[in-house]
Amino acid sequence: MTAVRHGGDIYRNQVRLDYSVNCNPLGMPDPVKEALCCSVESWAAYPDMYCDELREKLAEKLAVKKEWILCGNGAAGLIYDLAAALRPQKARLPVPSFTEYEAALQGTGCAVFYEKTRKEEGFRLDIEAYRKNISEDTDLVFVCNPNNPNGSAVNAQEVRELADTCREKGAILLVDECFAELTGEPQRYSVVSACEKNPNLVVLRAFTKTFAMAGLRLGYLVTSDRNLLKEIQRQRQPWNVSVPAQIAGVAALSDGSENYLKESRELITQERKYLTERLAAMGFTVFPSAANYLMFESSMPDLYEKCLNYGLLIRNCSDYLGLTEGYYRISVRTRRENDEMLDIFRKILTAHP
Amino acid sequence: MTAVRHGGDIYRNQVRLDYSVNCNPLGMPDPVKEALCCSVESWAAYPDMYCDELREKLAEKLAVKKEWILCGNGAAGLIYDLAAALRPQKARLPVPSFTEYEAALQGTGCAVFYEKTRKEEGFRLDIEAYRKNISEDTDLVFVCNPNNPNGSAVNAQEVRELADTCREKGAILLVDECFAELTGEPQRYSVVSACEKNPNLVVLRAFTKTFAMAGLRLGYLVTSDRNLLKEIQRQRQPWNVSVPAQIAGVAALSDGSENYLKESRELITQERKYLTERLAAMGFTVFPSAANYLMFESSMPDLYEKCLNYGLLIRNCSDYLGLTEGYYRISVRTRRENDEMLDIFRKILTAHP
Repeated sequence: MTAVRHGGDIYRNQVRLDYSVNCNPLGMPDPVKEALCCSVESWAAYPDMYCDELREKLAEKLAVKKEWILCGNGAAGLIYDLAAALRPQKARLPVPSFTEYEAALQGTGCAVFYEKTRKEEGFRLDIEAYRKNISEDTDLVFVCNPNNPNGSAVNAQEVRELADTCREKGAILLVDECFAELTGEPQRYSVVSACEKNPNLVVLRAFTKTFAMAGLRLGYLVTSDRNLLKEIQRQRQPWNVSVPAQIAGVAALSDGSENYLKESRELITQERKYLTERLAAMGFTVFPSAANYLMFESSMPDLYEKCLNYGLLIRNCSDYLGLTEGYYRISVRTRRENDEMLDIFRKILTAHP
Repeated sequence: MTAVRHGGDIYRNQVRLDYSVNCNPLGMPDPVKEALCCSVESWAAYPDMYCDELREKLAEKLAVKKEWILCGNGAAGLIYDLAAALRPQKARLPVPSFTEYEAALQGTGCAVFYEKTRKEEGFRLDIEAYRKNISEDTDLVFVCNPNNPNGSAVNAQEVRELADTCREKGAILLVDECFAELTGEPQRYSVVSACEKNPNLVVLRAFTKTFAMAGLRLGYLVTSDRNLLKEIQRQRQPWNVSVPAQIAGVAALSDGSENYLKESRELITQERKYLTERLAAMGFTVFPSAANYLMFESSMPDLYEKCLNYGLLIRNCSDYLGLTEGYYRISVRTRRENDEMLDIFRKILTAHP
C-alpha cells in the first residue's frame, strides 16, 4: 500500500536469515521477555499516557531531567510526530541516510535540501561543510549518528559544534542516535549530555534496535525544549505508547542491562571486523562502519534476489537517495549466523563467478 | 504534561475498582491472552506494515474489501491520523461527545462548529437537525454512535441519511462505532455496510473496548475511499501497529469470538438495566444508554473525590463541552463489581445525605 521500501519484510518473503534489519544480535533480553509474559492481564487497561515509570528510569540512566524525555510509538513514529509539530519550511538532511526523514517531511510540504556525502569518503558526513550550509532560513537539520545505511559515525564534539551552529541560525537539530548504543563507544558519539545547554538539540533514541524489540514500537526524544515536547503531544493522541512497550522498556533498563549491552558491543565489534575482512576477501567493497551493520558494493547483478533464493534477506540499498544499484546493507549478527550468511555468499559467487 | 482529562488514570490514583473506562467487562478473551504469551519471541522483528493477516480477518468478518481497511495505533490514534491527512478547514461535531475529536482538530487549525444536544432529550443527537447544519464548506463531520459519554444511539438508517447529506455537500463523515459492538444490537446501529456505496463515509472501530485490550492500542478505519487511506499512510510511519497488537487482533477474531461477544452483550444489557434502576432508586438522574456505560447527574458535591476515597474511579464529565459539574459516567461491569460499586455509592449517600 505505501511505496516505502524497507528491510524486515519477513511477512511477504520466505526468510530463514534476516540480515535486512539491524536489531541487537543477542535478541530480546530475558528480563524483557519475562516481564512481558507475566503482565499480559494488565494490558486490558489504558497505558499511562505520561510513561512515568519508564521516563524516570531513562532520566536516571541518561542523567537528564525526566521532563526532557518524550516516549513514542517507535523512533520512526517520533520523526513524524516532530515533523507534524514543527511543520518546517526548510530542512536539510544528509544523503544517503534513513529514508523516513524525508518521508515524514513530505507530509508537511517542507522544502528539503540534501547534503551529499561522497563514496570516496565512505559516505561519511563532513560536519564542517554541513555547518556552512545551514542558513538563517533553515528550520530543521538531521544527523544520523552512526549513519544508516553505511554505519559511518562522527564524534560528539563535531555534532555539538553543528548543534551550536543550528542554534545560532535558529534551526532545530535532530540527532538520530538509534544505533549509538550498539557502537563500541557510545560515549564517543552521543550528544545527549549537550541537551541541557542547547535547547535546539533533539536526540532521538530507540529500544527497537538496542534491545531487539522492534515489534513493540518504543522510541524516545531527549531535549531541554519543553515547549517543543508539549507541541508534539498536542499533535498526537494521549495514549501513544502501549502498555507492553512501556513494560518492556522498564525491564530493558533493569539491573543487568549494562552487562547485556557490554556483551552486545563486544560481539558486534568482533563480528563486524570478521565480516568486513571476509567480505573484502570475496571481492566486495566494504565501507567503514562503527555500527551493527555494514554497507558494501557489489557488481554482481541481482544479488538481493539470489540471496532470497537461499532464504537470506539483505537490504538492497538502491532506493536510498545518493546510492544506486549495487549497494547492499547487512546486519552484524552472531558468528554462527554470520558463517551461514557467508556460506550463502560463497555459493552465489561460485555459481556466478 | 498534556492538559487532556480522561478516565483510566490508574497510574496516579489508588484504584481498586475502575469504572472510568469502558472496556468489555468480561476482560481480554482467553485466545488473545494465549496468543500473546506464546508469541513474545516474535516481537523482536518489525511489524508487518500492511497488517495483512489482521485486515484479511477483518474483511471477512465485516464483509468488506480488505483494501478498505486501515489499522492504527488505537482508535484515538486514527482520529489524529485522519485529521492530519485531511487538514479540514471546517468541521462539525456534536457536544457533549468524545473530547479527542476536537483535540485532534486543534492541532490542524480547523474551525470547529458544535451541534449541541439537549439534556431534555437525553443528549441524543437529532440527526435531522444535524443534517440541516451541514453546509457546502463543511469538510468533516463527526458522529459517535453510541455517543460517549452518555450512550445514546441513533439508528443506522439515520446515519446513512446523514452520510448522504455529507456526500452531497462534499464532506467526509466519520462515524465512531467504537462501542457499537457492545450494544445489544450492533446491526441496528452500524453503517459499515454503507461504505461500499458512499466513499465519503469513514467508520472507526476499536479492539480496545470490544475485547478489553486498551493497553495494546488497536483500532481500524473502514472506507471505500482508498485515496484517503493512502494519504493517511503517507502522513504516518510505516510501522504504526505493533506486533502484539496485530497478533491480539487476529486472535480476537478467531472462532469463538462470536460467543464471547454474545455473552458480553447479554451481560451488559442485563447489568445496564440493573444499574439504571438502582442508581435511579438512589436519586441519581440516569440518562438512557444503549452502550456499556451510563451517564448520570448528581447534586452531591465532590462525588468523584468521595468515590476515590473508596478506591472507586468514576469519570467526572465536567470537562466535556456541553456538560457541567455534576455529570458522571460509569462503565457497566459484572454483577459482583456492580454491587460493590453500588455499595460504595450507598455508603457515600449515607455519610452525606
